[in-house]
Amino acid sequence: MNPELFLQLDRVIHEKGRLAIMSALAGTPELSFTELRDTLDMTDGNLTTHIRILQEEGFISVAKSYQNHRSLTTCSLTKAGRKAFTSYIDLLEKIVRQNKA
Amino acid sequence: MNPELFLQLDRVIHEKGRLAIMSALAGTPELSFTELRDTLDMTDGNLTTHIRILQEEGFISVAKSYQNHRSLTTCSLTKAGRKAFTSYIDLLEKIVRQNKA
Repeated sequence: MNPELFLQLDRVIHEKGRLAIMSALAGTPELSFTELRDTLDMTDGNLTTHIRILQEEGFISVAKSYQNHRSLTTCSLTKAGRKAFTSYIDLLEKIVRQNKA
Repeated sequence: MNPELFLQLDRVIHEKGRLAIMSALAGTPELSFTELRDTLDMTDGNLTTHIRILQEEGFISVAKSYQNHRSLTTCSLTKAGRKAFTSYIDLLEKIVRQNKA
């Protein structure tokens, strides 16, 4: 086995909740906070915490706007986030291949 | 995307260090503590903690014996551990496939 593969897994993305968020955002240009919360069935608090961590890491960008007098928060992957997520998935693929052999 | 996939990831196995340990043990009948530590380049304390958690979960069994007047600790996957690891890798494969599509 190659232990390097596991060491290379990005700690920020590897957490289950954040992995789900990154995966949801990878398939679309952007999602609102509400869409993310409902898709992933997360609590507001949990989603807010994960979003802050991903934002601090530079992996997602968060935009706030107003629509029909209500605030709208939308999230999208940054270029760095998309790159990091692609690398992460490539690593998972190698780990799967190594363990299926 | 299917958010269920992420929720199903086993929390105990998903941690990077424990994933590496499970993966190392999956490929062999057993490994000594020293072999595991050297293969994975972990500290004694770190490896001991992860082994205890995996043992409490029923995923690995630990045997202590004496060889040439020195104690020898060996670890191996239990049947439940092998099953859980196989399920985990199968889930990873689905996540990879979903994100590569």
